[in-house]
Amino acid sequence: MHSASKSWLLLSGFVLFYIIYLLFGALVFSSIERPAEDELRLDTQRLKETFLNQSCVSAATLELFLSRVLAANKHGVSVLRNSSSRSNWDLASSMFFANTLVTTVGYGHPTPLSDAGKAFSIAYALIGVPFTMLVLTACVQRIMQPLVLAPVGLLQRAGLKPRPATVVHFLLLLLAVVLCCLLAPAAVFSALEASWTFLDSVYFCFISLCTIGLGDFVPAARPGQPYRALYQVAVMVYLFIGLMMMYLLLRTFHKMADVHGLTTFFQLPRCEASLMDDDTEPIVCNDPTPPRPKDRPATKPLDPGSQPSYNSINKG
Amino acid sequence: MHSASKSWLLLSGFVLFYIIYLLFGALVFSSIERPAEDELRLDTQRLKETFLNQSCVSAATLELFLSRVLAANKHGVSVLRNSSSRSNWDLASSMFFANTLVTTVGYGHPTPLSDAGKAFSIAYALIGVPFTMLVLTACVQRIMQPLVLAPVGLLQRAGLKPRPATVVHFLLLLLAVVLCCLLAPAAVFSALEASWTFLDSVYFCFISLCTIGLGDFVPAARPGQPYRALYQVAVMVYLFIGLMMMYLLLRTFHKMADVHGLTTFFQLPRCEASLMDDDTEPIVCNDPTPPRPKDRPATKPLDPGSQPSYNSINKG
Repeated sequence: MHSASKSWLLLSGFVLFYIIYLLFGALVFSSIERPAEDELRLDTQRLKETFLNQSCVSAATLELFLSRVLAANKHGVSVLRNSSSRSNWDLASSMFFANTLVTTVGYGHPTPLSDAGKAFSIAYALIGVPFTMLVLTACVQRIMQPLVLAPVGLLQRAGLKPRPATVVHFLLLLLAVVLCCLLAPAAVFSALEASWTFLDSVYFCFISLCTIGLGDFVPAARPGQPYRALYQVAVMVYLFIGLMMMYLLLRTFHKMADVHGLTTFFQLPRCEASLMDDDTEPIVCNDPTPPRPKDRPATKPLDPGSQPSYNSINKG
Repeated sequence: MHSASKSWLLLSGFVLFYIIYLLFGALVFSSIERPAEDELRLDTQRLKETFLNQSCVSAATLELFLSRVLAANKHGVSVLRNSSSRSNWDLASSMFFANTLVTTVGYGHPTPLSDAGKAFSIAYALIGVPFTMLVLTACVQRIMQPLVLAPVGLLQRAGLKPRPATVVHFLLLLLAVVLCCLLAPAAVFSALEASWTFLDSVYFCFISLCTIGLGDFVPAARPGQPYRALYQVAVMVYLFIGLMMMYLLLRTFHKMADVHGLTTFFQLPRCEASLMDDDTEPIVCNDPTPPRPKDRPATKPLDPGSQPSYNSINKG
């Protein structure tokens, strides 16, 4: 098969499997957590009714009542009347939660209630987090050509020297990412979420795309949100594209730093060379071993007793 | 200066600057957020007193009271009596918050209350997150030799072939990380935190080291915690070492996958070669340009009109 077709087929497979994995997570989380949530919600409602029906409120009963209300709230079960009907573990919300797990954003609203939910979260993230990194890496690799290599080439053809071209390109890319992944989505969020200011929305977008995910602002969380499931899916798509662009920005910055000799200065792994080559000696072992690949000879003469390092192991 | 000394000096400088940056963040967050928190705490206490002093509790007043209690709780200000005295923004807690920002763990307990706090969070993370990645990368690079290269060499000398040696080494490293960074700390947390089961503690450690940081379990959060500041600093050190080990595991896995040809199969960037070399054409430009470095010729014949790609830019 042609290499480019294979590459796109593989990427499509990755993305399809990513969606299936999110759906699978949503189904499991929903089926594990919904009964536990229903029970907690019922308990909290009963508690509230009992509290309202008593003749006088003492400081001690209020304290006990509030401590249980806050404990329920920690798990996303609100005692407030207008939020009593909606579940945090319907299919779309569970998928949203699964998505915040695998992307490591982790808003923490809601959080699993049951031990089974916690154990499944660990198992789910154990596979999901590296797999999401793989999918993001594969996607970023495919957009490097149109968004990094081609524009740098264009700038060079426009008369810029290679080094300034990488800087100008990085600044333009940064501007585009800030506009398209931070400011524009923030404007949309501040229009959709009644209680969010523009600063709140920018703060939410930034905190999410850095995968910090504090969880003080979570979209589609207000009671009676219209088209909630659709909104949550749209936020998931935004998070995925946003994270991809952040990763692209990071890789481009790393490459630019590399071109400018910064990685060498800080003695960090270069974008295009293993750290092994730069700062460590090859591992001495007893095995007879193949020589270093001919097209990439060692820059330092080999120690007479030296044998191949981790990276000179023949992959054939 | 000798390269190894320079390398260690640079690393020490990084770690020192990292600590100074955390302290600086702690001071700013504490000074911005503490007045806002004090005000909210006072309001909440007044609200509670007013609520207690009224003769009868109607559903409407309870609803209003609870909505304000939950809003204060969202920002880490609890209405409960036993938690009324402690601040979330003393120096140690602010440093803990700054640390969860720059490591992208982001538990979200507490979260900034004021607009100034939110704006500073963005600016602080903008510099802090990449810098923390730089420090972690630099640290991981220094421990690659004793924890990856030397053991793989040992295994090879013990008679293992290179490929199985990398697999055995990875599994041993994985076991060591699970024991030392997950199970042992979890045992400590479940002993220190009265309300945490062992599963809760494992769940906390795993969710933290993946930088998901849901925030349903946060150490040192219970009222009257003895040696709270010391405990928080210890958790920060644990998080740093844990994240370093996770990153080491990831790099080792990447290298192992590389040795086994998996990165080539998935057409991903190899640990030791740029993605540019594998799947993209060099950028055509009009500049007269230096030839590809002699020690690393192109594997494909160059297009007659072709010019250097992003990575063939001369760094000298």
